[in-house]
Amino acid sequence: MAAWGERLAGVRGVLLDISGVLYDGGEGGGAAIAGSVEAVARLKRSRLKVRFCTNESQKSRADLVGLLRRLGFDVSEGEVTAPAPAACLILKQRGLRPHLLVHDGVRSEFDQIDTSNPNCVVIADAGEGFSYQNMNKAFQVLMELENPVLFSLGKGRYYKETSGLMLDVGPYMKALEYACGIEAEVVGKPSPEFFKSALQEMGVEAHEAIMIGDDIVGDVGGAQRYGMRALQVRTGKFRKWDSCSG
Amino acid sequence: MAAWGERLAGVRGVLLDISGVLYDGGEGGGAAIAGSVEAVARLKRSRLKVRFCTNESQKSRADLVGLLRRLGFDVSEGEVTAPAPAACLILKQRGLRPHLLVHDGVRSEFDQIDTSNPNCVVIADAGEGFSYQNMNKAFQVLMELENPVLFSLGKGRYYKETSGLMLDVGPYMKALEYACGIEAEVVGKPSPEFFKSALQEMGVEAHEAIMIGDDIVGDVGGAQRYGMRALQVRTGKFRKWDSCSG
Repeated sequence: MAAWGERLAGVRGVLLDISGVLYDGGEGGGAAIAGSVEAVARLKRSRLKVRFCTNESQKSRADLVGLLRRLGFDVSEGEVTAPAPAACLILKQRGLRPHLLVHDGVRSEFDQIDTSNPNCVVIADAGEGFSYQNMNKAFQVLMELENPVLFSLGKGRYYKETSGLMLDVGPYMKALEYACGIEAEVVGKPSPEFFKSALQEMGVEAHEAIMIGDDIVGDVGGAQRYGMRALQVRTGKFRKWDSCSG
Repeated sequence: MAAWGERLAGVRGVLLDISGVLYDGGEGGGAAIAGSVEAVARLKRSRLKVRFCTNESQKSRADLVGLLRRLGFDVSEGEVTAPAPAACLILKQRGLRPHLLVHDGVRSEFDQIDTSNPNCVVIADAGEGFSYQNMNKAFQVLMELENPVLFSLGKGRYYKETSGLMLDVGPYMKALEYACGIEAEVVGKPSPEFFKSALQEMGVEAHEAIMIGDDIVGDVGGAQRYGMRALQVRTGKFRKWDSCSG
């Protein structure tokens, strides 16, 4: 393994995943991961540009930042790249009206979006909202469209809460893809467009950036395919065999 | 298209799918499809052997047969090949203790199966039972196993009830496969073992049998791959583009 100095040569920007890297969600909002508050503070004191690049789709950016600040992190809304705002931009650009299968906590991000007479479906990490009834409704909306369009805010398999591993949006995306015989458009990591917008916000090129995350596919694989460096932490959903199976 | 006489030359046995072919499920048990009660009666009066080959996994065979008899069909439990009894046989043969994610209506089929300290997961068409909590529990059981084994009773995408299209077990199988990075073992159509046992019960060879169903993958594709003839009805979940996409 190359020395750290060598591996980080030329890096000007650091993208930080949030869940599993800075904190683990759970009862009462969750808990900061040991050392992470200080690590963010040190990064911000350094010459490096820092941006938070998350697939969090249960909470609005405002709520997420509020939670992180209560946990002691130095972070503001403008520093966060998240999939719901990115999805809203795409919906507007393409004149699409979504049926939303999302968590109540993120619904406010879609306040400016017309959801009448839907011509596409947007799913996010809906948690308990992934009831059979809600999944069936999303399925029926898609099956009634001549050209069914499904957006998925991320495609993570699972994430870690303080109480254990939890199914993420990815499995439900796969369920609807199979049911309807379609392929979803992923908004969020590992989509290249998502990394592109995060890098643009930082003013940093891909080869000058490093992504730090706990997801071997969404964070590490996605960043590397986009020409960035990547580092997998051993917190969050990290499991030893990930490194081999990814 | 060849004439009917030619297409059916040498056929000695007819396998009938149930849901979407004989009846559509729904409120109050569902409704017989026009002409199907009489068609079954005529088949039974003919020289042909008849067997009912279903992926129904919400109801026990006893309940299913009771429903069909109330709708006017001439059918007995011994004439039905269904996935839950087939799964029980496999579990016993391999000494497996399942965590069950199934509909209450089919649970009695597993009465003789040890479900303590589970070392595999069985999912069936659980309907409303496919809550986030129940899916997450099945996921967690699988993730805690060194060699996760998942059985799916069928892999249908959806079926038709009188009220509309409904998600079947297949999408939920895909969800767990993706979440855990595994491949499920399908018990039911289109699994070759399932057709084999139905044909053995009839005493008919594959090339002497025809499967009649509404599912282009489970019924038609599965039967043809097993060397049987197959016929897709235009009732149930049949949709015009199925014939092209299948």
